[in-house]
Amino acid sequence: MNSSRCAACKHLRRRCPSDCIFAPYFPSNNPRRFAYVHKIFGASNVGKILQDLPVSYRGEAANTLCYEAYCRIKDPVYGCAGIVDQLNEQLKIAEYQLATIKAAITTALQPSYLLDQSLPML
Amino acid sequence: MNSSRCAACKHLRRRCPSDCIFAPYFPSNNPRRFAYVHKIFGASNVGKILQDLPVSYRGEAANTLCYEAYCRIKDPVYGCAGIVDQLNEQLKIAEYQLATIKAAITTALQPSYLLDQSLPML
Repeated sequence: MNSSRCAACKHLRRRCPSDCIFAPYFPSNNPRRFAYVHKIFGASNVGKILQDLPVSYRGEAANTLCYEAYCRIKDPVYGCAGIVDQLNEQLKIAEYQLATIKAAITTALQPSYLLDQSLPML
Repeated sequence: MNSSRCAACKHLRRRCPSDCIFAPYFPSNNPRRFAYVHKIFGASNVGKILQDLPVSYRGEAANTLCYEAYCRIKDPVYGCAGIVDQLNEQLKIAEYQLATIKAAITTALQPSYLLDQSLPML
């Protein structure tokens, strides 16, 4: 029945079988979700990745494939790997700040440092 | 000539044309590099992504596609998106630690706080 075809089968203009590998993860009311993964991975590769996984993992895999496909469409050069690079950079900065501040605290807590400081409020 | 085919054309068992879209980025001495992207994205999609980019960006795009394909082969459920999740989590922890330590310093530098503290080393 045409009206019950999933987004993948609608996109691929084919009948949606009762055991369709795509249907649970690509509902007909969200056609863009399948269009993204189809453009980047291809329907056959997405189907293979899902098929090779236990059913309980397929939903998460479909979500992460959509996320990656969306990233690649938005940024065809770096895709999701560009987000990894940005986050690594931010993490490096945050860890450097933490290390610097901890080192400064350690220095400030040395008795010799405290004695050398003027504490005008005392 | 067979011996000069790139990794993609060798994998696809075809002649490597002089203007092969894959050849500059998938040298014959690294067949796994193409095998990864072929398995996850498909040769046709990789070719289309590269073809749609200016030549100067294609090398980076090939590298990031290989990285994403490798991540997906290693972790078929989460792929590269799993790395993004992990990094986001680590960044959240580092930023929370930074905010906590900065708040503690601000409190410790309040004159009222300093007056309330015993400073045994003084």
